[in-house]
Amino acid sequence: MERLREEVYQANMELRDCGLVTATFGNVSGIDRSNQVVAIKPSGVPYGELSPQKMVLVDLEYNVLGGELNPSSDTRTHVMLYRAFKEIGAVVHTHSTCATAWAQAMKPLPCFGTTHADIFYGEVPCTAVMRDDQISRDYEEETAVQILETFKHYDYNQIPGVLVACHGPFAWGQTPHKAVYHSLMLETIAETAILSLNIDPGLKAIKRSLLDKHFLRKHGANAYYGQTGKE
Amino acid sequence: MERLREEVYQANMELRDCGLVTATFGNVSGIDRSNQVVAIKPSGVPYGELSPQKMVLVDLEYNVLGGELNPSSDTRTHVMLYRAFKEIGAVVHTHSTCATAWAQAMKPLPCFGTTHADIFYGEVPCTAVMRDDQISRDYEEETAVQILETFKHYDYNQIPGVLVACHGPFAWGQTPHKAVYHSLMLETIAETAILSLNIDPGLKAIKRSLLDKHFLRKHGANAYYGQTGKE
Amino acid sequence: MERLREEVYQANMELRDCGLVTATFGNVSGIDRSNQVVAIKPSGVPYGELSPQKMVLVDLEYNVLGGELNPSSDTRTHVMLYRAFKEIGAVVHTHSTCATAWAQAMKPLPCFGTTHADIFYGEVPCTAVMRDDQISRDYEEETAVQILETFKHYDYNQIPGVLVACHGPFAWGQTPHKAVYHSLMLETIAETAILSLNIDPGLKAIKRSLLDKHFLRKHGANAYYGQTGKE
Amino acid sequence: MERLREEVYQANMELRDCGLVTATFGNVSGIDRSNQVVAIKPSGVPYGELSPQKMVLVDLEYNVLGGELNPSSDTRTHVMLYRAFKEIGAVVHTHSTCATAWAQAMKPLPCFGTTHADIFYGEVPCTAVMRDDQISRDYEEETAVQILETFKHYDYNQIPGVLVACHGPFAWGQTPHKAVYHSLMLETIAETAILSLNIDPGLKAIKRSLLDKHFLRKHGANAYYGQTGKE
Repeated sequence: MERLREEVYQANMELRDCGLVTATFGNVSGIDRSNQVVAIKPSGVPYGELSPQKMVLVDLEYNVLGGELNPSSDTRTHVMLYRAFKEIGAVVHTHSTCATAWAQAMKPLPCFGTTHADIFYGEVPCTAVMRDDQISRDYEEETAVQILETFKHYDYNQIPGVLVACHGPFAWGQTPHKAVYHSLMLETIAETAILSLNIDPGLKAIKRSLLDKHFLRKHGANAYYGQTGKE
Repeated sequence: MERLREEVYQANMELRDCGLVTATFGNVSGIDRSNQVVAIKPSGVPYGELSPQKMVLVDLEYNVLGGELNPSSDTRTHVMLYRAFKEIGAVVHTHSTCATAWAQAMKPLPCFGTTHADIFYGEVPCTAVMRDDQISRDYEEETAVQILETFKHYDYNQIPGVLVACHGPFAWGQTPHKAVYHSLMLETIAETAILSLNIDPGLKAIKRSLLDKHFLRKHGANAYYGQTGKE
Repeated sequence: MERLREEVYQANMELRDCGLVTATFGNVSGIDRSNQVVAIKPSGVPYGELSPQKMVLVDLEYNVLGGELNPSSDTRTHVMLYRAFKEIGAVVHTHSTCATAWAQAMKPLPCFGTTHADIFYGEVPCTAVMRDDQISRDYEEETAVQILETFKHYDYNQIPGVLVACHGPFAWGQTPHKAVYHSLMLETIAETAILSLNIDPGLKAIKRSLLDKHFLRKHGANAYYGQTGKE
Repeated sequence: MERLREEVYQANMELRDCGLVTATFGNVSGIDRSNQVVAIKPSGVPYGELSPQKMVLVDLEYNVLGGELNPSSDTRTHVMLYRAFKEIGAVVHTHSTCATAWAQAMKPLPCFGTTHADIFYGEVPCTAVMRDDQISRDYEEETAVQILETFKHYDYNQIPGVLVACHGPFAWGQTPHKAVYHSLMLETIAETAILSLNIDPGLKAIKRSLLDKHFLRKHGANAYYGQTGKE
């Protein structure tokens, strides 16, 4: 558990150092699949006061496993994603500026270029707005319900992030570090997309063949980017 | 008084460190309600030269209580807010870029998302433009008059900030630290709102049920965010 | 002369530290009126390699007074401004992003708020585009000619800056430090103005009475801002 | 080779320090023309882990000359540019935000001002979108084919950069340092151009006479900018 806490702590600090956090908005969690334990940032604690020991451990039924601190108020969203997306090892939530701007506009983020296509295999979807009956139930669980509803039509391994309507982005990955990376790239492509629309308000997504080429040169059986082939 | 000065000094430095200050624009004050004394940043002194001792003490009739420095030229606005808003402990004024852009556009900042709803219970109002007869009277007092006129229709405890038309934002809170936090969040949501309008120029505010849910999970009797429940 | 060089050097570094400089674009000069000597940044030298001794001294006929380095390629523009604007002590030229965007758009910067009105007594004018016969003469002198032509209709003491069409901003002041401050404020209001137009594309300048109030509370016989009255 | 590696390493770090790099996107290469050897950043290695020794050496037939690391996945694009543009000594590729926004919008970057004209002698072209038959061949080679096709109509010595449609910018120069400088200036003018279009959506490029004046005062036989004439 110490290693998980350390890794989740480091990823939370990385999130802040990337400029993705305003005040205490933003949190990273990670899961130890063999023990079914999730480590997550405590709720409302300033980043400067965090430490590995302050990462809160919870099980998949939301029980806090020791410690004095409340887990992030978004914990139930994280945990439900772990239950549904069996292959992910970490979840990140931010209110990063440009991705949040898209979420607030309630629009999917179109794939306008190869930076996007390198990470996300097509548009990053935006959930439906939460219905009133959902809001009156468990809000954080229903946030996950919104996401899972949306991913009936997408592959979470190929699109490691989502825009929650009127709220902000979630991203995930195999490790806390990778999930933070996906959050950073989501913010980056969200910003570039807004600027591209400034230049051409009628801009359309790139063609399928280009999307395929870029995503598949970094992912899947025939990937050839990075040092992987040498290791 | 030393503790108040220290707290107000720290909050002024925090304001600068958040990137909310250009040159000497921006000031924080705090009030000691039991002694009816306000500590405020001196006028036109560079942030790098401030110290707790340089915070100027004034009473609620604007009298300077000792010291060599003039208080901020906005002192009368701060003091009038303390007289009218009995439950606040601190006031912040900035010319932060995006909140000022909304103030200059003379438009209330609509609630486009949950980041906004977490802090402000609905739109952040914009005052009317100051009338010529007001300008010819005491300008800084009339700035407060504008704000108080506007808050006949809003609850200052639920909307801890305002846009003064053609000028810039004021925010407040129970402590100097919290008032700075509200200033920072006002700037953040002002920026995100501009970007959301870039994506969808016809965007409308979020629905009431979502606003209620987000504001009330952090505020009021049933709040469950942060560590409060454990302390 | 050493004091002038030191002051001009410090102001050049301040310009960079304010974020107003990209690569080697941007320069500050100052004048010793009693000796009719101007100190100016050398041409094309990286900011990290500057020192007070590297500031180049020139007289008002453009003669370099000793030293190994060429003065800034904009020297003739600076010098002509000193000859025409008798009360200024320093000139700053930058290609700062937002002020340059207005200059490239060939539009005066309207006064949309009190931040602007605190420094510039009305719109910051934009020169005419340089005519071909001017371009074929001494380009840097003609840049000053453009500015001086424009200021037939403005008071350089009340509007301490200008946008040179298709090029970028110049600002001035009584000291190098103040001229840098005017450059910084010009960039700030240029940015805020673009954002205000994003929110309301039809926005008009603030009314005269508000402009008068703000400019005159910081400038002229009845100014009451800052610590001046105490010194 | 050690000097080349050192120079290429320094330029890669400079690229990051300029803020042109997000995550591992972005790479600099340099060529030793006498030995026909190119040094280039390794693929997918974080900037903080780079060293001169990790720069990968390749020949002009793409053979890696020793070392354990894979060269940048963009190596073939760099090498083909060296083969075609005989006078360049370095190539830089980034996904810098604003230049990428133009590339994604598939539009050439018009010359809106003298900052642009100081570096690029006219618009920075945008390539055609890659055809499907190209995508199915060697993608990185075809990226160079796109660029070379475009430069049939431009002079690579006078326009040291290009926007690759749906992808991002490439820039080049006589040294790694200069190529990084061109990348930085391309990002700068791309940003300013977007802002100028915000102010005036119908803005046109500057006139030819002004373009000539600015480009030619820094380049070619009659250049008079900087310290060159003294050295």
